[in-house]
Amino acid sequence: MMTELQSFIKTYKDMVESVMVDEIDRLKAPLSLKKSMHYSLTAGGKRIRPILMLAVMSAFGADCSKGVKAAAAIEMVHTYSLIHDDLPSMDDDDLRRGKPTNHKVYGEALAILAGDALLTHSFYLLSTSPFTDRQKLELISSLSLRAGAEGMVGGQVADIEGENTQLTADELESIHLRKTGLLLQFSVSAGSIMSGVTEEQQRKLEDYALHIGLAFQIRDDVLDVEGNEIEIGKPVGSDESRNKSTYPALLGMQGAKEKLSQHLHLAKAALEDLPLQNNLLHELADMVVNRTS
Amino acid sequence: MMTELQSFIKTYKDMVESVMVDEIDRLKAPLSLKKSMHYSLTAGGKRIRPILMLAVMSAFGADCSKGVKAAAAIEMVHTYSLIHDDLPSMDDDDLRRGKPTNHKVYGEALAILAGDALLTHSFYLLSTSPFTDRQKLELISSLSLRAGAEGMVGGQVADIEGENTQLTADELESIHLRKTGLLLQFSVSAGSIMSGVTEEQQRKLEDYALHIGLAFQIRDDVLDVEGNEIEIGKPVGSDESRNKSTYPALLGMQGAKEKLSQHLHLAKAALEDLPLQNNLLHELADMVVNRTS
Repeated sequence: MMTELQSFIKTYKDMVESVMVDEIDRLKAPLSLKKSMHYSLTAGGKRIRPILMLAVMSAFGADCSKGVKAAAAIEMVHTYSLIHDDLPSMDDDDLRRGKPTNHKVYGEALAILAGDALLTHSFYLLSTSPFTDRQKLELISSLSLRAGAEGMVGGQVADIEGENTQLTADELESIHLRKTGLLLQFSVSAGSIMSGVTEEQQRKLEDYALHIGLAFQIRDDVLDVEGNEIEIGKPVGSDESRNKSTYPALLGMQGAKEKLSQHLHLAKAALEDLPLQNNLLHELADMVVNRTS
Repeated sequence: MMTELQSFIKTYKDMVESVMVDEIDRLKAPLSLKKSMHYSLTAGGKRIRPILMLAVMSAFGADCSKGVKAAAAIEMVHTYSLIHDDLPSMDDDDLRRGKPTNHKVYGEALAILAGDALLTHSFYLLSTSPFTDRQKLELISSLSLRAGAEGMVGGQVADIEGENTQLTADELESIHLRKTGLLLQFSVSAGSIMSGVTEEQQRKLEDYALHIGLAFQIRDDVLDVEGNEIEIGKPVGSDESRNKSTYPALLGMQGAKEKLSQHLHLAKAALEDLPLQNNLLHELADMVVNRTS
């Protein structure tokens, strides 16, 4: 039997993926660019950001189908960030989710431009999503802040500069917060904006997202040491070989796992007083902590 | 004595530049990223897109000072596109406006990320500019369409794919339209949106922008052959040495210059029935055609 979350994911993952593919197909753009954008958008992935966004809407009784365009937008931003992070001048990764990275297939120029186009198109999707003008502008300013210099891009810079350096746990957390946490937080904020929740409820949901995000990253680091190469889609131990600071390296494997369960606890605690109509957000938190890929 | 346009440029160029610098200074982001963004934003340039945008507002009697934030946004988008175009995997340029290109100073990773951050921040600026929600959304969707896969990014892909290929004059025009024309058109559209002009007036202004954009590119090609290396800030003849299709190569120098004056004529013709309050847009057209750098 499927859990509530599994059947929710089954429905909305397909819906978000087909909106993304339709958007790219419709573009009047050079075929090579469309192929490069399409390749990375359909290269798999858990679609955790779209699912999180739509799960918030579902938990507050909003119409999830209205949120699919914004969900596609956040996945495009995430995908652009992966394409650029994988470039030779950045993390120089050849594989992503077990497949050759974008620049390995299409070359660096197209990889950079596909990323640029995905980022740009995400703002188009938000500006034309089926919400009030006020809501759309909130989505756009919130995304542009969290994805930009103060957020994800700044986190990537700090991450690169932190390589071959012994970071403290606080520094590591600050990098992850910006690199992945803020975009997960945007997913939850966007779900809140599209559901019309109160500001206090939105703050609690953002707190939930903060802990989910940190748990997500710790789980990533743990999987990099303990995971199955085929399941995680990249060589086990690749962080260590690149001299990246990780939670297991800083806190020991036992310490990292304790921190992981603390964040799970805090994420669920943030949900306590919210009038949720289902269990999706709790199940999502468990999924992040227990995933094997 | 300064012309009307010269004194307009003197006032608003400084204003736009100081808004851009303030925006970067205020960012809570890694210093290296801010320096890299700052470097390219302040590396000179004619600021033709901001000036065009604000000149439309002035010509329709709107308050230009309200448009400065949007003008800074378009210049950030233009700057991001230059940084990415100059990268080794794209045009591989070492010099831009006589100074080392961004990646030569800060390295490829920071150059890519500074571009990403500038693009992202431009949407933040538009979403927080002092206009109605409807106007801001129009600015955002218009920019995201023209700067993305169907516009500027697609044009850059077509440009790269057209190197070492004998393009027809139509193909060359289609590339330039996307690569530079649509962003100039956005400048004019944005100025129209912010001035609240009618749709018919906006269409005429966009027609004006189309011809200005093509004239701009032909002038660039002519300068690449006839220009003064110090004034244009890059080696004369660099297009030819890179096997790029250019107007002088396709049409001969005389043919290119005739096409240039045709576009000047058509740009001015598009302005004919508009209730303009000053001569700025006519003077701008002349400036594009006669510039020596």
